[in-house]
Amino acid sequence: MCIFCKIIKKEIAAAIIYEDDLLLAFEDAHPIAPIHILIIPKKHIVSIDDLEEKDTELMGKMILRAKKIAGSFDISEKGYKLLFRVGKWGGQEVPHIHLHLIGGAELTEDIHPIK
Amino acid sequence: MCIFCKIIKKEIAAAIIYEDDLLLAFEDAHPIAPIHILIIPKKHIVSIDDLEEKDTELMGKMILRAKKIAGSFDISEKGYKLLFRVGKWGGQEVPHIHLHLIGGAELTEDIHPIK
Repeated sequence: MCIFCKIIKKEIAAAIIYEDDLLLAFEDAHPIAPIHILIIPKKHIVSIDDLEEKDTELMGKMILRAKKIAGSFDISEKGYKLLFRVGKWGGQEVPHIHLHLIGGAELTEDIHPIK
Repeated sequence: MCIFCKIIKKEIAAAIIYEDDLLLAFEDAHPIAPIHILIIPKKHIVSIDDLEEKDTELMGKMILRAKKIAGSFDISEKGYKLLFRVGKWGGQEVPHIHLHLIGGAELTEDIHPIK
């Protein structure tokens, strides 16, 4: 079972921000910004590349939930980033879809090839 | 009218990758990776922070479309990033929701506060 499925089942502890029947959100254990939250579907889907048409609404709900969580952390007005890492070249580390909500500071990033 | 609405209306040229009734995808004019495509809703929505519940399916369709476009560029297996910049601190430059599809190389990024 993947580590995020274990978090969903409460077999591994996490700082949970939000939970409903379809989604779970919790603090990233290795934050790269003052606010760094992961929003995941409870359904185990390995990556964006594994999505099917029937997952369309679920993905929309993830985006809308991220917006609401940003509001709850009072960063809506300042702004933030929402990031899906997909596969090896995208830097995905856990094989379960997760949306990074990154904010709490004015952020810059340099995205560049390493190979 | 915002620059992306002008691209939708074909008043400004862009290298269009995909178009349907709801979405448009085109090459970013200032790419930061070998493949850098923007997927936008034809509906003018300023930012993720302006989304309403009725936009849920539209956002899901954007994510599914990004996955399909990645496949059409043969980067599904290697991987890529999907990024929404939201507001000033997220680095959003055009006030019309756009999803960055960034790939074509193994990518690293450093995201850090600048203020």
